[in-house]
Amino acid sequence: MPQARPVAVVLASGGMDSCVCLAEAVREFTPALLHASYGQRTAARELSAFQAIAAHYGVTRRLVTTLDNLRAIGGSSLTDASRAVEQGWPVPGRVPSTYVPFRNAHLLAMGVSWAEVLGARAVFIGAVEEDGSGYPDCRQEFYDCFQAAVRAGTRPGAGIELRTPLIRLTKAQIVRRGVELGAPLHLTWSCYVEERQACGRCESCRLRRRGFAQAGVEDAIPYAPRAEAD
Amino acid sequence: MPQARPVAVVLASGGMDSCVCLAEAVREFTPALLHASYGQRTAARELSAFQAIAAHYGVTRRLVTTLDNLRAIGGSSLTDASRAVEQGWPVPGRVPSTYVPFRNAHLLAMGVSWAEVLGARAVFIGAVEEDGSGYPDCRQEFYDCFQAAVRAGTRPGAGIELRTPLIRLTKAQIVRRGVELGAPLHLTWSCYVEERQACGRCESCRLRRRGFAQAGVEDAIPYAPRAEAD
Repeated sequence: MPQARPVAVVLASGGMDSCVCLAEAVREFTPALLHASYGQRTAARELSAFQAIAAHYGVTRRLVTTLDNLRAIGGSSLTDASRAVEQGWPVPGRVPSTYVPFRNAHLLAMGVSWAEVLGARAVFIGAVEEDGSGYPDCRQEFYDCFQAAVRAGTRPGAGIELRTPLIRLTKAQIVRRGVELGAPLHLTWSCYVEERQACGRCESCRLRRRGFAQAGVEDAIPYAPRAEAD
Repeated sequence: MPQARPVAVVLASGGMDSCVCLAEAVREFTPALLHASYGQRTAARELSAFQAIAAHYGVTRRLVTTLDNLRAIGGSSLTDASRAVEQGWPVPGRVPSTYVPFRNAHLLAMGVSWAEVLGARAVFIGAVEEDGSGYPDCRQEFYDCFQAAVRAGTRPGAGIELRTPLIRLTKAQIVRRGVELGAPLHLTWSCYVEERQACGRCESCRLRRRGFAQAGVEDAIPYAPRAEAD
């Protein structure tokens, strides 16, 4: 009886992590999918990946929003074309230029508002702390604090639970878990820079490729030829 | 040496509370003013009040944003023209139809992102718990939790402090404090329904009028004639 399942809002970027997060959510919930673009370079490509993933899971309740304000606020190479995107590995302890200040708080606020209106019981976000990007708003501690704010700041009885099923996983574990759950990883997009063939060099591409390699799984998305040489 | 003062982001709706909040902020900080409309009925009137208040204080750093997503999400009579705005007093323990689910989390997220980019030390919001509207996201507890999320979810060393100087005040105390600080209350707009003459009957008008009456201060904004009969 899938109809009887409670609803959960799942934040879905079109990337690999949120795709596996969705695969976790559908085991218990009927998903409502929320996609937010925020003026990042590859917004159109990520949106088309989102729509393909939503279609794969037959999700009809989709909300596509823009957080254009994050572009107006600036401060990140992801949303500011005049700043370069780092091409190397994340440096431990350093916040990369691609960090969009406090971005996940905006995404969570959107997810929680929608969950409250829908009467959903949970909000899923595919944040990854381990093996991650060094973004402050990807730490479990941030989600624990935000959960308390959700409890205090929503309607009495709303009971909305934040779920971060990937937070302690490495990229390789995420790939393996995705394969295990039958997640359509071939439909996802991770590159921060290119929209047709992944660059293979930005931090997001590097983390993805290493994850597939360590998991021993082939990555079916197209990469630019020069990516192979690196 | 006002130049040496640290910067604070002040959320300013154009209403009375945020105007007095700004009057508190300028005592310690150089303000950067953030206004967000979210598709509410009186958005244009509130924006013009915001600009007038900003001009009064000579604030040049202003960011006007829209949270149109809150309209897409719906669930409130403030952003959904098909739902009536209550005309009576707030009922203790009941969340009014004008509640925009988790709205203040969106405003705070915006304020904190901008503060992080500007290097600002504080974010001021004129939320009022006492004598207020019954909105869950106006409780001090919500701000305490959100403060913890800000600490965990921003760049190390950002040190952004949430300030809610009005949270424990009654409307009458806010009016008195505004007069004491020379806040331009005559430039503010509170009505949820009308843009030329305040209706005097919506919950926001009622709270405002009672506050001025209890403070023994004349309210210089125009009210519709029928408001006087009620």
